[in-house]
Amino acid sequence: MAHHSRLSQIVIDVPPGEHDRELAFWSAAVGQELAQGVKYPEYHGAALPGQELGLLVQRLGDGPGRVHLDIHTDDLAAEVARLEELGAERVQLVHAWWIMRDPAGMLFCVVPEPAGSLDDSNAQHWG
Amino acid sequence: MAHHSRLSQIVIDVPPGEHDRELAFWSAAVGQELAQGVKYPEYHGAALPGQELGLLVQRLGDGPGRVHLDIHTDDLAAEVARLEELGAERVQLVHAWWIMRDPAGMLFCVVPEPAGSLDDSNAQHWG
Repeated sequence: MAHHSRLSQIVIDVPPGEHDRELAFWSAAVGQELAQGVKYPEYHGAALPGQELGLLVQRLGDGPGRVHLDIHTDDLAAEVARLEELGAERVQLVHAWWIMRDPAGMLFCVVPEPAGSLDDSNAQHWG
Repeated sequence: MAHHSRLSQIVIDVPPGEHDRELAFWSAAVGQELAQGVKYPEYHGAALPGQELGLLVQRLGDGPGRVHLDIHTDDLAAEVARLEELGAERVQLVHAWWIMRDPAGMLFCVVPEPAGSLDDSNAQHWG
């Protein structure tokens, strides 16, 4: 069964002590207010100006700061399986999305999108 | 004097031992061949499918893997000064671009673009 995915978001993960300054910095750096999430208030984000790609700042509970990438898909199971075949590993299912580890050990996420939001015009078609 | 900038590239920095597997993985993950740079062959990159934003994989000489962001600008000095006022610090001038550190200590780069390549239609206008 065919499915779609695309690299949809850049997420800047920040320890709590630096979060507010970091959020203010990146919002001003790209010239776009990053709005707080309602369902997941630890995230602030928006689409980059003039682009479809989203920029998010996540307040971490702990752990080191980093930047990670989110791949969005209309079939989570199929996309996770595709990325496993390419050499990634599942780490943890959090809320609705999978945290995975790429071949160099860096974390990224695979996030489900509602059916119909991705198609051949805005995403890659697999299978 | 007014200038422009935008978040233009995501760069996945990879230690040499994992570079080739990581490059193959991300190229297949996003469905886009990443071509080797001519002037800087340690980079492979391309625009993400259907987007203006670029994805690059950099072969590091050493150091830990990470993801970093590149801000492109038509006035390097003005943009670095703007970002310093927002709380970033200069780290090192490498080739033509500045490595900077954001308020949470994460590295990013500010990269010059040729005059005329950025304008009000594709970038933010400052000053």
